[in-house]
Amino acid sequence: MSLIVQKFGGTSVADADRIRNVARIITETYRKGHSVVAVLSAQGDTTDDLIEKAQEINPSASKREMDMLLATGEQISISLCAMAIERMGYQAVSLTGWQAGMLTDSSYSSARIKRIRTERIQKELDKKKIVLVAGFQGINKYDDITTLGRGGSDTSAVALAAALHADLCQIYTDVDGVYTADPRHVTGARKLDEITFDEMLELASLGAQVLHNRSVEMAKRYNVNMEVLSSFSGKPGTKVKEVVKTMEKIHVSGVAKDKNVARLALVGLADQPGIAFKIFSLLAKKDINVDIILQSIGRDESKDISFTVARDDAQTAKAILEELKESIGFKSIQVDDHVAKVSIVGAGMAHNAGVASKMFEALYSAGINIQMISTSEIKVSVLVDERDADRAVQAIHDRFFSEFGNA
Amino acid sequence: MSLIVQKFGGTSVADADRIRNVARIITETYRKGHSVVAVLSAQGDTTDDLIEKAQEINPSASKREMDMLLATGEQISISLCAMAIERMGYQAVSLTGWQAGMLTDSSYSSARIKRIRTERIQKELDKKKIVLVAGFQGINKYDDITTLGRGGSDTSAVALAAALHADLCQIYTDVDGVYTADPRHVTGARKLDEITFDEMLELASLGAQVLHNRSVEMAKRYNVNMEVLSSFSGKPGTKVKEVVKTMEKIHVSGVAKDKNVARLALVGLADQPGIAFKIFSLLAKKDINVDIILQSIGRDESKDISFTVARDDAQTAKAILEELKESIGFKSIQVDDHVAKVSIVGAGMAHNAGVASKMFEALYSAGINIQMISTSEIKVSVLVDERDADRAVQAIHDRFFSEFGNA
Repeated sequence: MSLIVQKFGGTSVADADRIRNVARIITETYRKGHSVVAVLSAQGDTTDDLIEKAQEINPSASKREMDMLLATGEQISISLCAMAIERMGYQAVSLTGWQAGMLTDSSYSSARIKRIRTERIQKELDKKKIVLVAGFQGINKYDDITTLGRGGSDTSAVALAAALHADLCQIYTDVDGVYTADPRHVTGARKLDEITFDEMLELASLGAQVLHNRSVEMAKRYNVNMEVLSSFSGKPGTKVKEVVKTMEKIHVSGVAKDKNVARLALVGLADQPGIAFKIFSLLAKKDINVDIILQSIGRDESKDISFTVARDDAQTAKAILEELKESIGFKSIQVDDHVAKVSIVGAGMAHNAGVASKMFEALYSAGINIQMISTSEIKVSVLVDERDADRAVQAIHDRFFSEFGNA
Repeated sequence: MSLIVQKFGGTSVADADRIRNVARIITETYRKGHSVVAVLSAQGDTTDDLIEKAQEINPSASKREMDMLLATGEQISISLCAMAIERMGYQAVSLTGWQAGMLTDSSYSSARIKRIRTERIQKELDKKKIVLVAGFQGINKYDDITTLGRGGSDTSAVALAAALHADLCQIYTDVDGVYTADPRHVTGARKLDEITFDEMLELASLGAQVLHNRSVEMAKRYNVNMEVLSSFSGKPGTKVKEVVKTMEKIHVSGVAKDKNVARLALVGLADQPGIAFKIFSLLAKKDINVDIILQSIGRDESKDISFTVARDDAQTAKAILEELKESIGFKSIQVDDHVAKVSIVGAGMAHNAGVASKMFEALYSAGINIQMISTSEIKVSVLVDERDADRAVQAIHDRFFSEFGNA
């Protein structure tokens, strides 16, 4: 008998029928002899509706009160789901964040889990009960309710799995698992049976919105076996683990596209040491993350620096740098927000020199111009014109995932 | 500086505008230099909507899970109201039942408050914060959420006022206060400035739905000064206290009508000792409350017993007695559910012999037949035909509350 933590997102519990469906999945797992702790999100649009109510009353409400308000959403889900399970003849008990012992710091609206007091959950599991825990929420040292922010329920689930030493943490969502590319846009995209934490982290940060990075990072840290699967299809999903065992070494796990990117170019910089440091520390201070950086080789005592930021940050970054034009010393600044980042991710990549060149070749064959390149141990990213992005993903995907198997 | 507990019901916080209105009342009280603890109910139809959601999933859901679900309603109200108060530039903090230390027994859906740990509230008051407490809810010894059942938020407010030794407990509602009769039906009904706990208890149980008896009983026990007033009108309300000081002794405080009543008559009972005991202990065992009882004087070795019960209980009571027709020994049983109880209530009544006869005279003048009579220290009730009820109330009210003042 093993202990399984299952997490169900907002769309999975959106209405009475879907709650019954979730109750079915949970009780089927329980019937197989497993102990089950299920973590639920708020139903469908509940959180948005509550935010709207708050906005109407106070657009700048304190985060403490926002957390107090929003935490009701998950509480509604867990009690309704417990009722559905009772109706099926099983014993269930719903627990809010504080009842489940989810202790967090005091950063309201983006709290971090510090520790989980598992006594209560353990006691209920010992009584053979199915335990339903409100995701996304916890309690701080003042006994005040906190919420975990974006991706919070995934994080609740992984943290519980780690604290309870669960054998598996299943993240039920509205997709079948992790794909080699976005199946809505790329022909031939196929579901992966397994993927490593590191690959998943790169894919998530590259815009494959299946799992929130925060939960994957935690799963990696505590070595929690995860599985991403659909609450609707009933098919096996994608396992996310530390090391993936497959018959053949897979070099590339997936191709991802990220349109939330803009390129800034500083032209005519003085070729002095410390200039790059000056620019990027300035941006970091204003919480602007810089991704790919390209620095031209200095000529005529001047050089250019190009870099990418999130598209929302582009104008702010430009303004910050404009203001310090004198002190930094550059001729002009250009912003291009019609670019996209296309990346391949794969744990086997570092040991296979041909991967990057294969990617470039695919783009060349498709007549797509590469603006910037960035590589890491398990990733190769290129910046292309936004209009070429979908074609680029398809071309790369075709090249690596032909019907004769993985590269 | 005094401490005031204010309670606002569901209609008072039904939408954003009304929440702002409540925030205004609270902050005005605070601005006058008082400490304020406000107890809120769930918004308008929230509780009914949540019950409907539960019904759809499980019509016989466990009470523990129902309490978990319903408690979210008040949590939403208090956080939104805190935001409204913050918006007005004051510091507020919302507390759920468990955060406010409302310890109850474990009777889910109808829990009784056992004790209040006031430390947290006191700490927030010391910081000069306005404290908003979720009404209707508490926590039991298992750390599970409980709700207090009907009239729960009034009870929360009075219990808090008692525990905090508040100077006043104001119950804000949608009526101006306690009236001498229902102002929607009786011409000349006027608002009372003051009323005693006992009178209020009689009026509440007689159908003047202003305050729930449970809260008044608690206020009487702990001698909490209450005031019933409107959250909309801004006028002074009715003070409810142990002893009322008025220039002249008021003999009658109000006239009330109760249509939730039915009369049962057992005809041809054997005139034996113990028969009445047998009947009423039988009904008590089945949780049927009997109100007025009238026993005819025995003749021909047989007698009749008439009594009233709540209208909903009439058929059950009939069935119970029918089943034991043999063992009790009676000829027939009659049920009349077209009756109504009309009562006058007044603390001064016991010392004023003329009150009851004045009431009967008013009914006689209006040509209304009295079916049964019941009297207590502070009350005279009569049973009349349902069709006569409104006329009876008006006639009695006219007689006692003429424009020349109280009787």
